[in-house]
Amino acid sequence: MANLGFIGLGAMGGRMVRRLLDAGHTVTGYNRTQSKAQWLLDAGMRWGETPRAVAANTDIIFSMVTDTQALQAISGGANGVLAGLTPGKIFVDMSTVSPAFSRALAAQVAETGARMLDAPVSGSVLTLEQGQLAIMVGGEPDVFERVRPILLDIGPKATHVGGNGQAVSMKIAVNLSLAVQMLAFGESVLLAERAGIAREIAVEVLTNSAVASPLIKYRGPFVVRMPEEAWFDVVMMQKDLRLALDQGRDLGVPLPTTAITNELLTAARGMGLGREDFAVLFEVLRRMTEKRET
Amino acid sequence: MANLGFIGLGAMGGRMVRRLLDAGHTVTGYNRTQSKAQWLLDAGMRWGETPRAVAANTDIIFSMVTDTQALQAISGGANGVLAGLTPGKIFVDMSTVSPAFSRALAAQVAETGARMLDAPVSGSVLTLEQGQLAIMVGGEPDVFERVRPILLDIGPKATHVGGNGQAVSMKIAVNLSLAVQMLAFGESVLLAERAGIAREIAVEVLTNSAVASPLIKYRGPFVVRMPEEAWFDVVMMQKDLRLALDQGRDLGVPLPTTAITNELLTAARGMGLGREDFAVLFEVLRRMTEKRET
Amino acid sequence: MANLGFIGLGAMGGRMVRRLLDAGHTVTGYNRTQSKAQWLLDAGMRWGETPRAVAANTDIIFSMVTDTQALQAISGGANGVLAGLTPGKIFVDMSTVSPAFSRALAAQVAETGARMLDAPVSGSVLTLEQGQLAIMVGGEPDVFERVRPILLDIGPKATHVGGNGQAVSMKIAVNLSLAVQMLAFGESVLLAERAGIAREIAVEVLTNSAVASPLIKYRGPFVVRMPEEAWFDVVMMQKDLRLALDQGRDLGVPLPTTAITNELLTAARGMGLGREDFAVLFEVLRRMTEKRET
Amino acid sequence: MANLGFIGLGAMGGRMVRRLLDAGHTVTGYNRTQSKAQWLLDAGMRWGETPRAVAANTDIIFSMVTDTQALQAISGGANGVLAGLTPGKIFVDMSTVSPAFSRALAAQVAETGARMLDAPVSGSVLTLEQGQLAIMVGGEPDVFERVRPILLDIGPKATHVGGNGQAVSMKIAVNLSLAVQMLAFGESVLLAERAGIAREIAVEVLTNSAVASPLIKYRGPFVVRMPEEAWFDVVMMQKDLRLALDQGRDLGVPLPTTAITNELLTAARGMGLGREDFAVLFEVLRRMTEKRET
Repeated sequence: MANLGFIGLGAMGGRMVRRLLDAGHTVTGYNRTQSKAQWLLDAGMRWGETPRAVAANTDIIFSMVTDTQALQAISGGANGVLAGLTPGKIFVDMSTVSPAFSRALAAQVAETGARMLDAPVSGSVLTLEQGQLAIMVGGEPDVFERVRPILLDIGPKATHVGGNGQAVSMKIAVNLSLAVQMLAFGESVLLAERAGIAREIAVEVLTNSAVASPLIKYRGPFVVRMPEEAWFDVVMMQKDLRLALDQGRDLGVPLPTTAITNELLTAARGMGLGREDFAVLFEVLRRMTEKRET
Repeated sequence: MANLGFIGLGAMGGRMVRRLLDAGHTVTGYNRTQSKAQWLLDAGMRWGETPRAVAANTDIIFSMVTDTQALQAISGGANGVLAGLTPGKIFVDMSTVSPAFSRALAAQVAETGARMLDAPVSGSVLTLEQGQLAIMVGGEPDVFERVRPILLDIGPKATHVGGNGQAVSMKIAVNLSLAVQMLAFGESVLLAERAGIAREIAVEVLTNSAVASPLIKYRGPFVVRMPEEAWFDVVMMQKDLRLALDQGRDLGVPLPTTAITNELLTAARGMGLGREDFAVLFEVLRRMTEKRET
Repeated sequence: MANLGFIGLGAMGGRMVRRLLDAGHTVTGYNRTQSKAQWLLDAGMRWGETPRAVAANTDIIFSMVTDTQALQAISGGANGVLAGLTPGKIFVDMSTVSPAFSRALAAQVAETGARMLDAPVSGSVLTLEQGQLAIMVGGEPDVFERVRPILLDIGPKATHVGGNGQAVSMKIAVNLSLAVQMLAFGESVLLAERAGIAREIAVEVLTNSAVASPLIKYRGPFVVRMPEEAWFDVVMMQKDLRLALDQGRDLGVPLPTTAITNELLTAARGMGLGREDFAVLFEVLRRMTEKRET
Repeated sequence: MANLGFIGLGAMGGRMVRRLLDAGHTVTGYNRTQSKAQWLLDAGMRWGETPRAVAANTDIIFSMVTDTQALQAISGGANGVLAGLTPGKIFVDMSTVSPAFSRALAAQVAETGARMLDAPVSGSVLTLEQGQLAIMVGGEPDVFERVRPILLDIGPKATHVGGNGQAVSMKIAVNLSLAVQMLAFGESVLLAERAGIAREIAVEVLTNSAVASPLIKYRGPFVVRMPEEAWFDVVMMQKDLRLALDQGRDLGVPLPTTAITNELLTAARGMGLGREDFAVLFEVLRRMTEKRET
């Protein structure tokens, strides 16, 4: 069993640590707010005082944080991961961050003699708990092979997609289709409904049709009844779409449906729905078809 | 076994007749070009000289034609279906036509004492041959119940979605998501590819991700290698999207991703790709990112 | 002075007749509803019982009707313009109709020995009254030269743009920019306003900037205060945009900003604003940014 | 006459200094590359060794730099403008930068006892040379009144639009309409051309129509013949559109036509046209309608 570190113990990261502990690994964890990690400490996780300490005391260090800025915060500086890395160690970042930053960080890691992988995941907390999380991995093939068995303790499928930073690129590319499929689904349902078909029937037909991706099967029913808690909210989705649109701009790849979907997510914010699951795109569209009494 | 008529013996219609014959029904068929129906005549299908003759000599009459205009042509006039209908007969149109025209035709059918259903299908020739075609049905519930067993000889699932014309509305609503999902998939693949990921790997990741609808699983690989023959070409898809956008306009339902996808299909035409499968949207996008030597 | 006919005496057509009468021409007019033409009869206009009668009794026959269907109605049939045309006459249609239909009608006119021009105008009732209406003309150059002096009695500028049907194509092409400029202006104003700038100041800056087209100068102030009566309403604008988008599709010219603007006009209809001036696009956008109390 | 500083002596900044010198002011200038300022030194401009030195030795300090990052570079640090400011001085930034950064900088300036205005301009080098540049100003009214006479030596119109940062917000809002109008114009021209109208005639009609903004009058002819040198290139325009789209997202204002125009500019980059004037949007569209021989 391996001696692992894990930085970022939120909804996703925490549950990943739990799976790693269950698989028998030793895990030293760090989180900005320690109290949120109590359930993991109770389950046997050790505590690292700083990201640097975690890196110094373990062989393979994972991180799962909110965004590029958060990754900068835990990796750099006197207490950062980089300061704790030494030759032979592997740093595996699972966050969705700017591919350019991920690549730059991999170069800094390499200077310490350690190696880095980017390993973002496709799927939600639910997918993770069901043990069905797909992991994309960027970095050197031999480094991937060393980490692979541990990744398979997190999810059943780990695909090597290319060099450093390319797994986050792939993740971003997947997520743009998530957002667009959701809006297109909303267009389909609303058009059917306004033509006189019951919304539930429209959802049923669509979730059994050629467009019924796992996303549509999971989130399709949300247009009938939104979930109490967002699985992935508008603000988070726009973070990913901004990365996609920025990368598209830099690489010269136009993303027309992504861009227009992003604007409807912006409208969701304007309507005060930024913390709702991004399935709220249907509601945005619905309000655009609403008559006023005044 | 039933005494059936079938008007329109093209790629889809012909294969449906074949399944009905195989199920033991008597089928009288009509097609504008008789020669294309020889294989069905060889298989035991009877020939009707006109749509009217087919309607006059059978109990349940199906039609599967190209568009609204073609349905007008076979239903109206001295030799049309309407002229052959009498009380008790049922006319089942499986074409994708204007919902308003379908509704109007149902009213004309009712005046003859017969009844009409609209019963468009979701899926391609391949889906049909695999016996997996889903059928949506609009019209009166009791009429649907009478025809249901025969529809199940064509495909395994027949869903009653509402009154006359509403099944074509539903079909149109499904198809808009088909087109948009395909373009979004193209954006995902191209963004990944330009970030340095092999196109085949990007396709593999996406076809195993949360966006992997049956459409994406079938057509995703087309972005690596286009099919020799279009399953559903750009011109046909635009016919459906025009029906969707027109209906959206009339009902006050904005369809932003549909509209933008439609414009990329228009570009496909401009590029001379109108007869390619609509998966060619990827190629349209790719050409938008292409440097010139000049 | 010329012996002129004029079919279609609505807001635009009626005022044109008035200008022609004022210029000293003899005008025989026809309108579906005769009562609306009383003010012109009072001003000296003669009455024609049918479009055919107007064509039979005059040398140059103008028409200005709502859409393609209305032009079909007045041109064909036993009482239509075509039935009254003879060699040497000229039929000048000023309506905004399908270019393909305009071209087909010109061919039918040519069979009678007469000639046709399409001569749509750019501008509103206001522009017409100010004597500033620009007229685009399609057809043979020598026919244009014969009609030109009379067109100049309607507006100060008549430009020959090409053969039959091409002036309506040009008109449609102009109008798509009208709609898009209006929506872009709305985006500019709303973004400025939400950034804390008073709406009036934003409008003032924009109407004095590089984007200040005549359209923006006229309609810009509408986002502060909508006009009591629409100059050109949402439904009318969508008629023109549909012609543009259909022609784009047929010619393979993608119109991305037109398509997306058209969907916002569709939303206007959904909101019950179809009869408002198309400057209401600002209000559509504004409602997309509105929080709800619930 | 005033004792002025000017930081950033590029195409715009340099010409502004020239106008200020011509008006009789004393100007101390700074530019990263001194050699580019030789013509101004020859014309009587004094040289400041650092931005700090410029600020220390003058009363009103102007800056005109490329982007937010460049403004950060000249304002902060030991040699930055902030280090040279003292009570009573005024810092007038004319760059187009992030409104949030502009606002934050104004707060830092206030801490020194000095005051800041943001004063971006609408117009190109040409407009400036013709003495027709419009200036938008954000900041306190009394500070604006003090600087106004000097601004009027640069351009004929200076409008106070609101508090700190709001003039850059206004500038960004204007620029999005510039980009969208240009693309819509391209759609109009290309649709007309494919309908058979000569491109020159289409441009002439449009530049005399209701959509003929100054932008269209200046840049419209570019679709017939692109300029040798870009007035404002694709990369620069995308910088502004990103500011607009980011601000829209943060304020909840959807910008649909802006977003789609931005993607066509992205395509321009992909085609290797990033350094062309943004009128190249027409060429992007044209290539989307191009058949291949293969």
